[in-house]
Amino acid sequence: MSVDLASAYSGADVLVTGGLGFIGSNLARRLVALGARVTLMDSMIPEYGGNLFNIHDMRERVTVNFADVRDRSAMDHLVQGRDVLFNLAGQVSHIDSMRDPFTDLDINCRSQLSLLESCRHNNRRVRVVFAGSRQVYGRPMYLPVDEAHPVRPVDVNGINKAAGEQYHVLYHDVHGVPACSLRLTNTYGPGQLVKHDRQGFIGWFLRTAVEGGEIRLYGDGSQTRDLNFVEDVVQAFLLAGADPRANGQIYNLGATPPVSLRELAELLIELSGKGSVRFVPWPVDKRAIDIGSYYGSHERITAELGWRPATPLRDGLRRTLEFYAANLRHYL
Amino acid sequence: MSVDLASAYSGADVLVTGGLGFIGSNLARRLVALGARVTLMDSMIPEYGGNLFNIHDMRERVTVNFADVRDRSAMDHLVQGRDVLFNLAGQVSHIDSMRDPFTDLDINCRSQLSLLESCRHNNRRVRVVFAGSRQVYGRPMYLPVDEAHPVRPVDVNGINKAAGEQYHVLYHDVHGVPACSLRLTNTYGPGQLVKHDRQGFIGWFLRTAVEGGEIRLYGDGSQTRDLNFVEDVVQAFLLAGADPRANGQIYNLGATPPVSLRELAELLIELSGKGSVRFVPWPVDKRAIDIGSYYGSHERITAELGWRPATPLRDGLRRTLEFYAANLRHYL
Repeated sequence: MSVDLASAYSGADVLVTGGLGFIGSNLARRLVALGARVTLMDSMIPEYGGNLFNIHDMRERVTVNFADVRDRSAMDHLVQGRDVLFNLAGQVSHIDSMRDPFTDLDINCRSQLSLLESCRHNNRRVRVVFAGSRQVYGRPMYLPVDEAHPVRPVDVNGINKAAGEQYHVLYHDVHGVPACSLRLTNTYGPGQLVKHDRQGFIGWFLRTAVEGGEIRLYGDGSQTRDLNFVEDVVQAFLLAGADPRANGQIYNLGATPPVSLRELAELLIELSGKGSVRFVPWPVDKRAIDIGSYYGSHERITAELGWRPATPLRDGLRRTLEFYAANLRHYL
Repeated sequence: MSVDLASAYSGADVLVTGGLGFIGSNLARRLVALGARVTLMDSMIPEYGGNLFNIHDMRERVTVNFADVRDRSAMDHLVQGRDVLFNLAGQVSHIDSMRDPFTDLDINCRSQLSLLESCRHNNRRVRVVFAGSRQVYGRPMYLPVDEAHPVRPVDVNGINKAAGEQYHVLYHDVHGVPACSLRLTNTYGPGQLVKHDRQGFIGWFLRTAVEGGEIRLYGDGSQTRDLNFVEDVVQAFLLAGADPRANGQIYNLGATPPVSLRELAELLIELSGKGSVRFVPWPVDKRAIDIGSYYGSHERITAELGWRPATPLRDGLRRTLEFYAANLRHYL
């Protein structure tokens, strides 16, 4: 049975790294509603997801602190006194990680170590929930992928995200920091980055559908993914940050049934009433790090923390399309 | 059937990072004997294993280049024209990695990325053999540990070594650099670091036995390890650097039968005719990252590259003790 989120978060002191980004800002909105005191950290790196518009409706109800997680002194200060730290800051583009592996290393490894060292030395009891990634699995050896699947990333981002996650488990096991990780699959919803196509396909598909453009599918578009609506992902973070059973653990998120990229594109065009699909050959650099079909099992987090995705794909996509139809200019 | 090492290395241009260290210098000695042109790189970081005495017998037959693998410009230049690159530079202390995780990250992740970027841009055909570690497995879930065992490191060093290894496989898979990794278990022999006890127990046991001191065993000393004599490890590197079947692969080294630390200590005392054993409680910081009993399966490299350990433990230890009895002053 799940923990009671209202009693867990009412009055709690919560820090969110990557707090002006897609998931961070949606999480902040729930936290504010639950009565938490919320501080949002963001580095506002231009190519990343931080966007002031994401918090325009709650700007007066949260504390915003512009800083990079790599800034050790600031982190040492910012972690003090917190009850929960949602650690969502990251470099999330797979393709960028192959072009500039050092920035990815800095943000996804060094920053995570730095943040955990800050917790170890300044607030060892803070509950840390890390935004991990299904990218650590690489090309699935079986489907659905559960947490026992080997970790065999196929790009620099996946390797570094795996290391960043392992640090969290290690700092729990060795230093007693109550940290855990959620391995996110493809998340979509209001507030996500749509200004370029290097942070996954969904944002780009959404924007293209809203603009009535041409959605390009590589190959025959038959590769599958599982998609989580951001409000469901937020629910998983809240549960993991409140339930001591999560300490030291790693959980997949996920959704059933999986959907092919072709089905997804067609659904977006149907819902928006605009746009078209075009099949194009695989670009060489994307083919090299593609993982084929993926969908995950979320049985473990369902059994242990009581989480399950609640939003049907069609409903989530409709709400997201409506959001961007009204607000696209703030995301370009 | 194994490749012919004489024809593979005669006249070959070979770069060894960590070349003045324990394994690097023993590898250099074989390479010189095989007729290779050998360049040894070493950063000479004081606490690490680089030692000029390790190459005193071949100083005129190798080129020595003092530089850190983190020095990208130097690496860009040094990789050019090489046929084989034995990549042995690393931070190898588990306990140091927990005290100073950033240095470990710099050397075991950033440096490896930097070296591979140098190869990608300046010499994409160089065969790279990486010195991996059985530390990536963490606490064994079954014995003997084969390459299919999950990668679950229990210290920062293990996490970073895992990432460093994955970069090598990735640069093979995506960029075509013919790289591979050997997961070394405990290696011992002439030339290893014995000046402090933070690079594993064997060097320290050896030194203590030579000095007639007291070998301290944590707990009851029943935990097992498998030990490889350095000449056998060198043979594995030579095979992996010459055989195209190794490209993109990961291989365990290992030895049977495994030996308990207690048996090892008693054997050292018998062979040296000096020293004693004392059982002491586990230090807290070492217990937290201890992996329990370990021994690995080397079936895969035996089947694919024809490698197997050839030196009985007793013979290898005797030769090592004789070496340090004569040369200990150069290693303090």
